[in-house]
Amino acid sequence: MKTLAVVLASGGLDSCVTTAIAAQECALAMLHLSYGQRTERRELQAFHEIADYYKAAQRMTASLAHLAQIGGSSLTDRGIEVSRANLEATEIPTSYVPFRNAHLLAVATSWAEVVGAERIYIGAVAEDSSGYPDCRPEFYAAFNRVIAIGTKPETEIEILTPVIKLRKSEIVRRGLELGAPLHLSWSCYQNEEQACGVCDSCALRLRGFREAGVRDPLPYAIEI
Amino acid sequence: MKTLAVVLASGGLDSCVTTAIAAQECALAMLHLSYGQRTERRELQAFHEIADYYKAAQRMTASLAHLAQIGGSSLTDRGIEVSRANLEATEIPTSYVPFRNAHLLAVATSWAEVVGAERIYIGAVAEDSSGYPDCRPEFYAAFNRVIAIGTKPETEIEILTPVIKLRKSEIVRRGLELGAPLHLSWSCYQNEEQACGVCDSCALRLRGFREAGVRDPLPYAIEI
Repeated sequence: MKTLAVVLASGGLDSCVTTAIAAQECALAMLHLSYGQRTERRELQAFHEIADYYKAAQRMTASLAHLAQIGGSSLTDRGIEVSRANLEATEIPTSYVPFRNAHLLAVATSWAEVVGAERIYIGAVAEDSSGYPDCRPEFYAAFNRVIAIGTKPETEIEILTPVIKLRKSEIVRRGLELGAPLHLSWSCYQNEEQACGVCDSCALRLRGFREAGVRDPLPYAIEI
Repeated sequence: MKTLAVVLASGGLDSCVTTAIAAQECALAMLHLSYGQRTERRELQAFHEIADYYKAAQRMTASLAHLAQIGGSSLTDRGIEVSRANLEATEIPTSYVPFRNAHLLAVATSWAEVVGAERIYIGAVAEDSSGYPDCRPEFYAAFNRVIAIGTKPETEIEILTPVIKLRKSEIVRRGLELGAPLHLSWSCYQNEEQACGVCDSCALRLRGFREAGVRDPLPYAIEI
């Protein structure tokens, strides 16, 4: 029997390719968490379409409404503007949701412990990222230690971050090699019909496709 | 200005005494999280009464409904019976909610980062506990490392567990010394009107009061 893996999937490009990587070796328990982000509905659609594509053995969706309640991010608080991308900036962008990935990993770990999954895949990206502190390899190493200590003695769960050191263009290429359904993924933080093309997430995605020499199959509100 | 501290408070004995300890040095941002546990309503009442007693500067309550959705515990899954206490047992009791405290700490950390709190207090108890893996000092040390890495560089948040090494009787005594409103706390995992007296949590509480030589002020369904 194949190893069961919980795959945290937002429905974006990185999690789409991460799902393709996990599917090579594991049966998939796909997990999507919404947290009041602006493009929640569109991301959920992308998640289900990717999970259908990979015939996920199990899937779970849940809402972490308290993240919107806490606020502090342009992704969840309509009072904070989504900043236009500045890929050279060194400060943390307004889209940072405080400590978000710890919430995602906590849910993934609890679910993994109950369903008997031995791995958690998450499509975090460090090198070419927007500078979120919870996307760095050290964060996942530290969290793996919390899991080892904080679960039952017989539980063995490890977080894997297969795209964390890749540039966005390498993620696009890896996805194409594996036949990942990139046309089903959604990355825009701002819009749900046509991607805006100017938010952090769109800018990174578009640069990735450009550097990979491939046209992004998604519809954009601007000329790309 | 006093340091602001987020205090995770279930409304039980341990968190009541932890609140009393935090209140000696800090202004309080009190946080209660429900997760579909059987005695949710009664715990929330205890939380608000304790927060009122200490005139908390801020308070937040939220529901982690996904913990009930994931299941795996007698606290959240009606299909699993609440085991009668066996304080000599070495296995993890059915009331263990997989990786629960990581969820509580994730919410506390996000809130602390947004409101500018520098400490998180949690009333975890290791020595005299029911054997939950996420109640041990190593778990909190590992989580502090995750916080240091996973939040903004300028954020300084530390988890404090002031009762973690105390026996229940010592917690009762510390509470009495500090004038903590123990009569407002609620510990029973089973009932909401009269404490059952036989679940893990009641058994530990009652033994604590007995060893401290004090009568527990709560109403019990059995002779104590």
